[in-house]
Amino acid sequence: MSYNTFGRLFRFTTWGESHGPALGATVDGVPPLLEITEEEIQVFLDKRKPGQSKYTTQRREPDAVKILSGVFEGKTTGTPVQLMIENTDQRSKDYGDIAERFRPGHADFTYMEKYGIRDYRGGGRSSARETAARVAAGAIARKVLGDGITIRASMVQMGSHKIDRSRFDWAEVDRNPFFCADAETAQAWATELDAIRKAGSSIGAVIEVVAEGVPAGWGAPIYAKLDADLATALMSINAAKGVEIGAGMEAATLTGEENADEMVPGANGGPQFMSNNAGGILGGISTGQPIVARFAVKPTSSILTPRKSVNTRGEAVDVVTKGRHDPCVGIRAVPIAEAMMAIVLADHMMMHRAQCG
Amino acid sequence: MSYNTFGRLFRFTTWGESHGPALGATVDGVPPLLEITEEEIQVFLDKRKPGQSKYTTQRREPDAVKILSGVFEGKTTGTPVQLMIENTDQRSKDYGDIAERFRPGHADFTYMEKYGIRDYRGGGRSSARETAARVAAGAIARKVLGDGITIRASMVQMGSHKIDRSRFDWAEVDRNPFFCADAETAQAWATELDAIRKAGSSIGAVIEVVAEGVPAGWGAPIYAKLDADLATALMSINAAKGVEIGAGMEAATLTGEENADEMVPGANGGPQFMSNNAGGILGGISTGQPIVARFAVKPTSSILTPRKSVNTRGEAVDVVTKGRHDPCVGIRAVPIAEAMMAIVLADHMMMHRAQCG
Amino acid sequence: MSYNTFGRLFRFTTWGESHGPALGATVDGVPPLLEITEEEIQVFLDKRKPGQSKYTTQRREPDAVKILSGVFEGKTTGTPVQLMIENTDQRSKDYGDIAERFRPGHADFTYMEKYGIRDYRGGGRSSARETAARVAAGAIARKVLGDGITIRASMVQMGSHKIDRSRFDWAEVDRNPFFCADAETAQAWATELDAIRKAGSSIGAVIEVVAEGVPAGWGAPIYAKLDADLATALMSINAAKGVEIGAGMEAATLTGEENADEMVPGANGGPQFMSNNAGGILGGISTGQPIVARFAVKPTSSILTPRKSVNTRGEAVDVVTKGRHDPCVGIRAVPIAEAMMAIVLADHMMMHRAQCG
Amino acid sequence: MSYNTFGRLFRFTTWGESHGPALGATVDGVPPLLEITEEEIQVFLDKRKPGQSKYTTQRREPDAVKILSGVFEGKTTGTPVQLMIENTDQRSKDYGDIAERFRPGHADFTYMEKYGIRDYRGGGRSSARETAARVAAGAIARKVLGDGITIRASMVQMGSHKIDRSRFDWAEVDRNPFFCADAETAQAWATELDAIRKAGSSIGAVIEVVAEGVPAGWGAPIYAKLDADLATALMSINAAKGVEIGAGMEAATLTGEENADEMVPGANGGPQFMSNNAGGILGGISTGQPIVARFAVKPTSSILTPRKSVNTRGEAVDVVTKGRHDPCVGIRAVPIAEAMMAIVLADHMMMHRAQCG
Repeated sequence: MSYNTFGRLFRFTTWGESHGPALGATVDGVPPLLEITEEEIQVFLDKRKPGQSKYTTQRREPDAVKILSGVFEGKTTGTPVQLMIENTDQRSKDYGDIAERFRPGHADFTYMEKYGIRDYRGGGRSSARETAARVAAGAIARKVLGDGITIRASMVQMGSHKIDRSRFDWAEVDRNPFFCADAETAQAWATELDAIRKAGSSIGAVIEVVAEGVPAGWGAPIYAKLDADLATALMSINAAKGVEIGAGMEAATLTGEENADEMVPGANGGPQFMSNNAGGILGGISTGQPIVARFAVKPTSSILTPRKSVNTRGEAVDVVTKGRHDPCVGIRAVPIAEAMMAIVLADHMMMHRAQCG
Repeated sequence: MSYNTFGRLFRFTTWGESHGPALGATVDGVPPLLEITEEEIQVFLDKRKPGQSKYTTQRREPDAVKILSGVFEGKTTGTPVQLMIENTDQRSKDYGDIAERFRPGHADFTYMEKYGIRDYRGGGRSSARETAARVAAGAIARKVLGDGITIRASMVQMGSHKIDRSRFDWAEVDRNPFFCADAETAQAWATELDAIRKAGSSIGAVIEVVAEGVPAGWGAPIYAKLDADLATALMSINAAKGVEIGAGMEAATLTGEENADEMVPGANGGPQFMSNNAGGILGGISTGQPIVARFAVKPTSSILTPRKSVNTRGEAVDVVTKGRHDPCVGIRAVPIAEAMMAIVLADHMMMHRAQCG
Repeated sequence: MSYNTFGRLFRFTTWGESHGPALGATVDGVPPLLEITEEEIQVFLDKRKPGQSKYTTQRREPDAVKILSGVFEGKTTGTPVQLMIENTDQRSKDYGDIAERFRPGHADFTYMEKYGIRDYRGGGRSSARETAARVAAGAIARKVLGDGITIRASMVQMGSHKIDRSRFDWAEVDRNPFFCADAETAQAWATELDAIRKAGSSIGAVIEVVAEGVPAGWGAPIYAKLDADLATALMSINAAKGVEIGAGMEAATLTGEENADEMVPGANGGPQFMSNNAGGILGGISTGQPIVARFAVKPTSSILTPRKSVNTRGEAVDVVTKGRHDPCVGIRAVPIAEAMMAIVLADHMMMHRAQCG
Repeated sequence: MSYNTFGRLFRFTTWGESHGPALGATVDGVPPLLEITEEEIQVFLDKRKPGQSKYTTQRREPDAVKILSGVFEGKTTGTPVQLMIENTDQRSKDYGDIAERFRPGHADFTYMEKYGIRDYRGGGRSSARETAARVAAGAIARKVLGDGITIRASMVQMGSHKIDRSRFDWAEVDRNPFFCADAETAQAWATELDAIRKAGSSIGAVIEVVAEGVPAGWGAPIYAKLDADLATALMSINAAKGVEIGAGMEAATLTGEENADEMVPGANGGPQFMSNNAGGILGGISTGQPIVARFAVKPTSSILTPRKSVNTRGEAVDVVTKGRHDPCVGIRAVPIAEAMMAIVLADHMMMHRAQCG
């Protein structure tokens, strides 16, 4: 788990820049004999693909994935799976401006400070295009987990507007451009985001990702706790600023009586939990309840209002982002969150099997 | 990086159970020629030590650290440093009760599900006593970072009661039993926590940890981002349920204009940031501003009110925790948070040096 | 360092099968601002390329490398470098025969036992084609090391015929098809290998690889000793069966007086060693002397003489390898050995810098 | 697998110096519910213990192991096992001499070059005492492997004197002070080593370690090949200079007809191999045949004959080792080799289970 590699047993390394010829993921540790096709992976990439509604960036990329290795006659062979996505929408334009200016809230300045060089075209390596590779890897992780585990995510808050939990319905997620499990709120968001988009502004969001069907016992304390792994997985998503498990930050406000999830004898001999403040994880190990995680993403800094900044020579400049942009990057973070949840769980499934048989 | 080891270059492995003969940390990758004594490490352990006020558990342990290797004539030699803390307050008592019952909100049930066996004495490996080893390792991490980097933490919220930021003063932290940077709030908390303690209840908290003096350029995208590493470090602390960097979960509510930290030319040729919503990290790399992280801890589930649970035979039982307990485990999480921040930064300092010279 | 990834700080992951669309290496941890071109990498690939003399396999591949990421305007950016080599000589032929038979001495049987599936075309993942990716990665490792370190290899034994050390001359290596530092022996080998080739047989070899200019102090005891890392690096090369450092297996026959390399005061204040039985490594750390490693490769099992084997149904079969084959695979192992030496040293250079500044 | 940690899933970190208060191993990833006692581990430590015959160093240490964590009521709990061995024979003596002189053939010089400091007492971290921790960890690895796998080692060569393979009998190994599987050769060695010992000299050796009962399919190509892992494991043993698998360096001299192990249909449906030049490994994966590895150790440099060297000020000095020494360090390497074989196999058993179920 270092630098551009994520995971311990099920693990992948992503590579590629926003405006280079291609990007991809090398997925290693994949169990053999899993049936997988490019089409199955493409389904998830299409969910993340830009330009699908007016609420996401208008960059148009087919994001077509190719499997270059590790699959033979439709099945994984246990050797590394190379997933490549060619970049096709690399508009030829003058980057002179962006090459010299540090956009506030972007990684422009820090990449330059760290490396002394940066591929400024479209954000280079720091671009959210990298997440396409994760989504592809996530499709393989789902294969590892099998059909018994369901992973779904929903945007649950846009700006200060949260969804109504009483109307939460997973079936709604694919029926609106926000991946929102509450149809009414989705409609309200549409109006709100239209206004933000037209004003050339942007807004943050919260995404919730839930895994059902995870058996009790996955997780590897102390430093590969399932919740700690989810925290790093979700915080590694572009623009993420906060991560919560179960009750999350609100756990601070609870009393001991309110917080601990009581148990009663369940149907199958195991306990039945009366609540899920734990978010399905105790001591870093799954309880058998749904795994519930949330994370907040900040609004994109690419907005029409001029912002104060400096250039590479340390001079004061104003920065304005013209052209296509994402008024709410939280939308496209939804399939990415599902992918990261699947990847973390696949890794833990294999870790558990390795140690505990 | 796996299981009981944390870190990549500066890394440590902790071992030991709550009621075994000892616990400790094997710290590897320590640069040579750092001056370090047991006394210097002890200072940090003493901050975390239980039984220092009526607001923390009354278990009494000297938590005296011994350096068993890696230090010669007062200096680190570059070989692994073994830090051992002997357990002394292992009250002989009948564990029969706790051996059979799963305490709600504890890791009792999940350890049993995972391993089919658990050391039930005092929570065994899942006990917060493990964090003593982290605090010891953190003292060495501070040595690696040197005097130019200051790491401090404060409890900033207890229950729903947040500190008043206008009164924030680091100097206050060591003057009250809450490690609270706001003296007035600390006084109010004293009254509130007294009531909670007497009622045999408990309450959650939020801790903020800040590192100043970190140069721009530390962090290793994409999967060792500085913020993602902090997320896993803090989420690995017992009872943590949420982690925030900079604006944190509130970033969701901001517009692009509000969120991105503007820059103007600074004194030393670099930029001067006008705000710090980023918490000192952009694209996973430090900006040179203070690194700001927060995390929420849930209330301990060890309370006097009986709670519904099951025993190892799947039968319904009531669980009551008698004896010493921590009404607000957030207090002792403060020195642990500082240690984890120091450890993450020491690791990143070395990673940056390795790649970028 | 797991599965298909090698290295700790300078590290690469290889992917691809012999007869898939492409193979490659994802090189991570590369320091920024190194100047590197496809042409510079190609030089090393051309040395390893098959079909260059009658003594290597007649498969003809251009083995043209493409840099897909991590290099911008001719310089490394510190982000992962993807090196891809497309497979072009995938003769369409009937694999039915090889698909069902396990070739003695090949990995056919073991891959099937492990994974329950194998890409039998050209050996799939177990093919030596994977080493093309290493050679490409090795070219980047040389850039990391800089001009002060010279890495060269020579075949020093073919069958039982060793070179004459008194005639050892690095300049000869590029003047004969054996990468042999002794011109006279190379001539004799030509005759010998002609006979072996015509008989449809094959023969083993020993390769020596030497790094000069490595400063004292590189190496990371106890489990990343420089010699232990070289051992795993060289043993991972296809067909390798033995690895030696310095005096190697012969060290067993020496007395204490003969073996230990005496030191006298040297020109620059450091010691001058009187011999180099240590092969430039003591206690896992470089001494400043040349690093000297050797490894033996077995003869290829692809020979014209029928060999007894079994098929996938467990039935007795005879296996004969028709068509192109390598009479002495040791020849093409020479540039691979140089690449692995460069990779190990680049990793250790960075590890040393990380810990010891 | 970096620095002082070995292994990926079954892994241990050793710590401690020759003359510090203690040394040990933190063993992580141990499966739960294995029955293990200090007495069982002690059996292996006693085999390695110094001072058992006149052929090994006369330092006298009980090398008594204590289990400090990870075992509860006689069974492993899945949490880290801390194995500690206290140093008791730390003769108080004047180290002034050795503190300033670099012993030829020792790691004195290189540790100083790397770290700028060294614990010179008894070789500090570079002392072979570190291997006691490995032997203890190896006892746990054997438990992981279970009774179906037998791991045994024998010294097979002392100086130039090899054992007679026709007399090879594992039962002899415990009947002579050389762990020699050939009783007659052991007798001859006794005479030869007596002379060497009395002359204050020393001699090298070759050790062979064999694992029987390993199923086909273990090993993780490309960079965790079973043979490559054994190579690094054995080369990490103090004084090792060469490692061989199966035919080893002699493979270079074989033809394709001689080398490849033919197969015929076996009793249980799988193949029966006609020979084992491969040493039980093809393509980095076990074949089901015995795993056969050998390694050469150099003679200790601690001899009575004065040797030329330099001191820390760069001045010419003569170095003579007085007092206790090991005339043939290969003897005590035998139980260490068994431990490393067990550790590598336990790791691969778990890796195989993780990926292939």
